[in-house]
Amino acid sequence: MTIPVKALQKTGPDAPFQITTIQRRNPRADDVVIDIKAAGICHSDIHTVRNEWGEANFPLTVGHEIAGVVSAVGSEVTDWKVGDRVGVGCLVDSCGTCEMCQQGFENHCLNGAVGTYNSVDVDGTITQGGYAEKIVVSERFVCRIPDALDFDVAAPLLCAGITTFSPIVQWNVKSGDKVAVMGLGGLGHMGVQIAAAKGAEVTVLSRSLKKAEVAESLGATRTLATSDESFFNDYRGEFDFILNTISANINLGAYLSLLKPRGVMAVVGLPPEKQPLSFGSLIGGSKVLTGSNIGGIPETQEMLDFCAEHGLGARIEKISVHEVDEAYDRVVAGDVQFRFVIDTSTF
Amino acid sequence: MTIPVKALQKTGPDAPFQITTIQRRNPRADDVVIDIKAAGICHSDIHTVRNEWGEANFPLTVGHEIAGVVSAVGSEVTDWKVGDRVGVGCLVDSCGTCEMCQQGFENHCLNGAVGTYNSVDVDGTITQGGYAEKIVVSERFVCRIPDALDFDVAAPLLCAGITTFSPIVQWNVKSGDKVAVMGLGGLGHMGVQIAAAKGAEVTVLSRSLKKAEVAESLGATRTLATSDESFFNDYRGEFDFILNTISANINLGAYLSLLKPRGVMAVVGLPPEKQPLSFGSLIGGSKVLTGSNIGGIPETQEMLDFCAEHGLGARIEKISVHEVDEAYDRVVAGDVQFRFVIDTSTF
Repeated sequence: MTIPVKALQKTGPDAPFQITTIQRRNPRADDVVIDIKAAGICHSDIHTVRNEWGEANFPLTVGHEIAGVVSAVGSEVTDWKVGDRVGVGCLVDSCGTCEMCQQGFENHCLNGAVGTYNSVDVDGTITQGGYAEKIVVSERFVCRIPDALDFDVAAPLLCAGITTFSPIVQWNVKSGDKVAVMGLGGLGHMGVQIAAAKGAEVTVLSRSLKKAEVAESLGATRTLATSDESFFNDYRGEFDFILNTISANINLGAYLSLLKPRGVMAVVGLPPEKQPLSFGSLIGGSKVLTGSNIGGIPETQEMLDFCAEHGLGARIEKISVHEVDEAYDRVVAGDVQFRFVIDTSTF
Repeated sequence: MTIPVKALQKTGPDAPFQITTIQRRNPRADDVVIDIKAAGICHSDIHTVRNEWGEANFPLTVGHEIAGVVSAVGSEVTDWKVGDRVGVGCLVDSCGTCEMCQQGFENHCLNGAVGTYNSVDVDGTITQGGYAEKIVVSERFVCRIPDALDFDVAAPLLCAGITTFSPIVQWNVKSGDKVAVMGLGGLGHMGVQIAAAKGAEVTVLSRSLKKAEVAESLGATRTLATSDESFFNDYRGEFDFILNTISANINLGAYLSLLKPRGVMAVVGLPPEKQPLSFGSLIGGSKVLTGSNIGGIPETQEMLDFCAEHGLGARIEKISVHEVDEAYDRVVAGDVQFRFVIDTSTF
């Protein structure tokens, strides 16, 4: 027996979203049923349904920034009860036994974690995401949303929040550090808030100064225009840590030159092409270039607690289930500050 | 008053080495005069005098792998005395006051460290390296060579040793770690020894298995041939740490795929061209790509002590001062196991 659930579905890359009914699995002993209150729109959702990352498995419901309330629990669930405020991010299962899972890095599961949508689940079905009324998820992939966070503000934290929080914590960004955030979109605007709340002095690097005011309101000390001719000379060796959220081609060597010796650039945006890298840019000053891919469940919980404690959250524009196609076009055009969140009460 | 010293000198990129007399400065209060016993030939020496890294300042004496005995000390020197066994590496001065120098990373001096040769010294002269009978150096850039290390075996440690030791220590390579060393030349053969002495399980990655026996004798568990068609598939996700000593173009993404999640590749070789890098190779598995540039003086001393304690040293072929031109050609041809060292008693 399955659970019929209203959901937004795409039948192909060019088809508009349609409201339809999908089936969620009957809860297993370790499952939690969540009534979804808010679902964030991540650029990954768009890349997926537009087949920009390969062929998607249509018909498909996407969404991996999910906030809601527990409405039922499986027979062996002890950590969650009906009424709990919870979130689900990019993962819904993993082996639980490998070295990485054991360390709480389910995102790096050596046997392959299961993504929240468009992934092959352990039962062989294709996972369906959070643009829906309900979701059924193993209790191990549920995080608690503190009372201080509204659902709509919390939803994008489950992807944009953890994606930026994880490298900031891993590389020990701390009080007094000079941090640069490249790009001020969905990811960047969370990175600025989190790094600033860690006590770092945060600079936003943007092509222009258009976003300077909003950057400051997020906790940045300043915005610098990278289009300024003398920019890369003026700020050579300036930063301890650079969070690169840009998914366009960049002059990688020039940005690495902004790091202090032993400084770190963490990339969380995926440009379409390979970026030419001179090893000299890393050898001189023994610099670090790293990537980061979402985060594990324990650190996702830590991130939610941190955001609640420091009053952080995504800046959102709330939309109804009827406005998602338009919202996608606006995301691609960069016309959102900073995240669309679907109000699932409008189904 | 200066000190006349016999030295090997090049007057231009195409001129052979000539034995001539150069002048060392009269020791300053903080200087140490060293009678050089052995001078290693580093590939950087060759790149420099052949103008492959830009215009060298001819006439020039190169060499930054220097081992010898203190023969005089300046009036304020307290740490060194005549007869001490000492070494000098790639650096002979730095500001001493910046954040990096204060942390013992003189190699990253924010005001510009002074290289042992072909650099502008604090007095405006061009520094002259170790292919000579004597050198005069600030006591702050002198390291102690433990009695257990012969001069000729110790000399290459001052560059090849510290270059590989530094990232191995920085990235905490430890017992049980799976380490790969790419390339088994001057740098690689030290990296294998050091990583193995740290307790790691060391694999040498080489185009063929030709060096398998010598790799094992250096402490490697195995050698794998990267030319094997299925190599990159077979060893996907195998290693915690890769030391990349190759200075040729490589398929960077393929090598990064050999790392476990959160694994680290440290590059110490400089390919002539930029290497195309897909950020996806770093984001998937949150991997780290870093470079490393020699090391600071405290860690150089730590490296010498570590090598003495574990019985490590460079494998060398000793040559006279008359054989350096030929040795250069053999280094470029890869025809040396693993380091030429000039016996300065042959001046």
